[in-house]
Amino acid sequence: MLSNPSKKYKKFVPLKLPNRQWPDKTFEKPPRWLSTDLRDGNQSLPDPMSVEEKKVYFKKLVEIGFKEIEVAFPSASQIDFDFTRFCVETAPEDVSIQVLSPCRPELIKRTIESLTGAKRATIHLYLATSDCFRNVVFGLSKEQTLQLATECTKLVKSLTKDDPKHKDTIWSYEFSPETFSDSDPDYVVQVCESVKAAWEPSHENPIIFNLPATVEMSTPNVYADQVEYFCTHISDRQSVCVSLHPHNDRGCAVGAAELAQLAGADRVEGCLFGNGERTGNVDLVTLALNLYTQGIHPKLDFSDIKSVIDVVERCNKIPVHPRAPYGGQLVVCAFSGSHQDAIKKGFEKRKDPKEYWQIPYLPLDPQDIGRTYEAIIRVNSQSGKGGASWIILRNLEMDLPRGLQINFSKVVQDATEKKGRELKTNEIVDLFKNEYLLYNFDEEETLEPAGHLFKLDNYELTNKSDKVRELSAQMSNYEGSVSYKVIGEGNGPISAFVNGLNKKFKSKFQVVNYHEHSLGADSNSKAAAYISCKVDDEHLIWGVGINEDVSTASFSSLLSVINQGIRMGVIKEMRA
Amino acid sequence: MLSNPSKKYKKFVPLKLPNRQWPDKTFEKPPRWLSTDLRDGNQSLPDPMSVEEKKVYFKKLVEIGFKEIEVAFPSASQIDFDFTRFCVETAPEDVSIQVLSPCRPELIKRTIESLTGAKRATIHLYLATSDCFRNVVFGLSKEQTLQLATECTKLVKSLTKDDPKHKDTIWSYEFSPETFSDSDPDYVVQVCESVKAAWEPSHENPIIFNLPATVEMSTPNVYADQVEYFCTHISDRQSVCVSLHPHNDRGCAVGAAELAQLAGADRVEGCLFGNGERTGNVDLVTLALNLYTQGIHPKLDFSDIKSVIDVVERCNKIPVHPRAPYGGQLVVCAFSGSHQDAIKKGFEKRKDPKEYWQIPYLPLDPQDIGRTYEAIIRVNSQSGKGGASWIILRNLEMDLPRGLQINFSKVVQDATEKKGRELKTNEIVDLFKNEYLLYNFDEEETLEPAGHLFKLDNYELTNKSDKVRELSAQMSNYEGSVSYKVIGEGNGPISAFVNGLNKKFKSKFQVVNYHEHSLGADSNSKAAAYISCKVDDEHLIWGVGINEDVSTASFSSLLSVINQGIRMGVIKEMRA
Repeated sequence: MLSNPSKKYKKFVPLKLPNRQWPDKTFEKPPRWLSTDLRDGNQSLPDPMSVEEKKVYFKKLVEIGFKEIEVAFPSASQIDFDFTRFCVETAPEDVSIQVLSPCRPELIKRTIESLTGAKRATIHLYLATSDCFRNVVFGLSKEQTLQLATECTKLVKSLTKDDPKHKDTIWSYEFSPETFSDSDPDYVVQVCESVKAAWEPSHENPIIFNLPATVEMSTPNVYADQVEYFCTHISDRQSVCVSLHPHNDRGCAVGAAELAQLAGADRVEGCLFGNGERTGNVDLVTLALNLYTQGIHPKLDFSDIKSVIDVVERCNKIPVHPRAPYGGQLVVCAFSGSHQDAIKKGFEKRKDPKEYWQIPYLPLDPQDIGRTYEAIIRVNSQSGKGGASWIILRNLEMDLPRGLQINFSKVVQDATEKKGRELKTNEIVDLFKNEYLLYNFDEEETLEPAGHLFKLDNYELTNKSDKVRELSAQMSNYEGSVSYKVIGEGNGPISAFVNGLNKKFKSKFQVVNYHEHSLGADSNSKAAAYISCKVDDEHLIWGVGINEDVSTASFSSLLSVINQGIRMGVIKEMRA
Repeated sequence: MLSNPSKKYKKFVPLKLPNRQWPDKTFEKPPRWLSTDLRDGNQSLPDPMSVEEKKVYFKKLVEIGFKEIEVAFPSASQIDFDFTRFCVETAPEDVSIQVLSPCRPELIKRTIESLTGAKRATIHLYLATSDCFRNVVFGLSKEQTLQLATECTKLVKSLTKDDPKHKDTIWSYEFSPETFSDSDPDYVVQVCESVKAAWEPSHENPIIFNLPATVEMSTPNVYADQVEYFCTHISDRQSVCVSLHPHNDRGCAVGAAELAQLAGADRVEGCLFGNGERTGNVDLVTLALNLYTQGIHPKLDFSDIKSVIDVVERCNKIPVHPRAPYGGQLVVCAFSGSHQDAIKKGFEKRKDPKEYWQIPYLPLDPQDIGRTYEAIIRVNSQSGKGGASWIILRNLEMDLPRGLQINFSKVVQDATEKKGRELKTNEIVDLFKNEYLLYNFDEEETLEPAGHLFKLDNYELTNKSDKVRELSAQMSNYEGSVSYKVIGEGNGPISAFVNGLNKKFKSKFQVVNYHEHSLGADSNSKAAAYISCKVDDEHLIWGVGINEDVSTASFSSLLSVINQGIRMGVIKEMRA
């Protein structure tokens, strides 16, 4: 049993924030985005990217539209240094290359060296401000930490924007009070004020203060409170860009990033599909598409999400989870009957593509990110009528009437329970053709009819009077051992055929329900006919027929009924 | 490019909640938990569980400590009905079996039938209350929806707690206004008031109103506002248990469940590791362990998380993501140098296991959930000194001095850059032994010394005076081609040896730094000696030696220096 945690784990004590404003705010625009896939993401991989993989990844980030990309820790290794050079030399003019360095002069120098010649560059320094990290890891007092951060900022300034040899580079500076979410907020403001004074930012090129949830410490509202506190206490707010860097230890990084934006933050650092140390950084795909589904363009392009997933999985060698928001393969699938039914109805009611998107269970139109509807519904033993009939609609263009949907869903349910697994689309289509004996559906026929079943060889339909049609139909079984004529009268071809059947067989046929629609848009398209028939007041059988000729389609649907009845053994013998 | 979403997607309009209380609350106790792994979870699987898998899963849920388990949709299939019977017959007395039914009388009857003889049972009915679902899916007006919910509730009551044949069962009733998060909150309250009146709950056995985020519609604070509104507007609050059922479409299900608990909810429905429709239900493992790390016992047992993962992965056939909070395999790994260093320092400072847990980057003691520290640190080319030396400490019990940590980290970095991948633990250990020529570390020696390197055959140490020791050491190379004596005096064995070396070789040896500690706790344990030596004022070489005898260990560390110098080609020839 889990031991009692009350003596081992301290409850996080949130700051008191009277008069908080963020819970009443909503999103108006996207934040500035920073991808740290190549730095925080890469350093957390069991199998880090090769140089080639990093280049592919960098190219993809630029394609997606990132204007700020943290690419390396250049003072840490020659590989990182060289890759920074590659980025500096190949980045588009409007992309700022960001690199990370600890607050150590010799490493700062090496770091800045790696950026020589960049069009836009951001130096990112970090220093922990929490008691735990200062005491346990660095052995630095509050005063020493503040001094070190300030001195290192001055050094960066003297080596970058104050150095004439770098005058062609647009320099930005980011400082992270590391472990912000576990730090005294007043002390963080104090450190940042001192750093800000050292850097001397402008409204045009503000200093970036990144407020990391280095470890996620509490619920997302607590992080938002901390960020609101910082935003409302730092001076000359217009010269400051407040950035977020949430980790996901408590599974709330996305929520924390969202609430903290409401609380005033301007910028978010994260990784595609939430790669990063331990539980990962905040997932930028989710954040961006969350904005998108609220009608706000994120200024990142995920219209071809598959190509993004390809690059991420290939380079990170960590799969995108099947349930990852937006990108996961199971996210646009519905397996349960009621969900499938609702989605189908939603699509049916959506006549005008200019309407607001409102499909049950689908917050995003999958096509907007390059995914298809096809995969939306799959069918397992828990699926109801909606799922299977959706597949028939998408694959055969046949819009089954409600009674037939229920009828077929039972067929599917039996088949999946027997197999003990989900059916594939083509299995469902074959099941449908087989059940309703659709032997004439398309040219390349795979299903062989049983010899004892009947087919319609030809027929003649004549007008006996204004209101009476007479049908004379030549029938035979496929093996050729039986042939006979069905002759009947009625007010239309179907009733004539049914009356003829009632004369020919000892069974009683009675039409309950009849539907018909064309397949496809052009005038030469086939017709589909659906008929439900009571046989001997007992057996309700649904028949389906397809033909270029509407009447023939109707007769085929009745043949489908007869043949199913024969297969079931419920059709009585012919009259003498 | 993603098209402009402003015309296609409507911004979600949150309700106005003046005077909201939840942002100032913190957790005091765990909620009531309901696992819907076997219902919502199972129905969303591409490959649903077999009956055997369901039984294994059910047993595990009981073991973990769930007292409310939703097991099936018994009216949907015979398999679900039969499995409900199994649960009814095998559940412990204090576990309530919950089953789901739509608001349809014939299905309700079948559903209740499946629970006959249960000790505790919960009937769960749902009916959508949002405009979208009522209009698009059900075609029911607000009034019709209210009527149907009320009538079906009365039917459930008449067939359960009012039916004498079921008097030995403790009946609970749950009603879900489906799509709650997209519904008019006043209307939801109105429907629930009517349902509550129909059920007639008591303080002892409250009615459960489950408020699903059927689809996650907005940020977690908006859901919390909706829940607080419901909690403060429903009458006779003590006869009501407010339950949550958050889905994860926007990646915020955990945050939403947490904030909504602060807003007054009493109960949470979800699945282990967040299985469930589309992006999944809220992850109950994360919620429970989030409470645990705040000092609150969740009343669920995840002390053996591996066995939970085993069952979940085997039955769901969906892997737990490597970055899933708490359970993911990468969550207790740190690959970057600074993280490794910090974790190592954290463990070193933690002398008293009764202290509050405060290890950098590790919000939970991995041992509390049956995971080990061993896996915490692995080493790649971005790792600094901390990672590799941690592995040496854990594997060889050798606590490397800081200078040697830096020295060895460069060795590791070169090796990983060459290999282009992370090193395994045993590779790092071998790298260490090989680099510092530790041929005598353990009995089963795998590393073969090169023949031209030297060993110490024997030595004699005598006291020349109170303060002066004389050493006479017999040395030879492993191939036996060279042997010589080193004779020197000094104030201790090390200085005597070094002085002897300076007489024997043309190179100048100078000790910079010396460390020594015992390996293991008992008095017969070996000693480790670390020495850094300048050779010819130019080459700083770190030597390492191990021996049962402290002096021999020192001499071995000097031999390690000499042999490395020979390998590097920096030791000048012997004097004549």
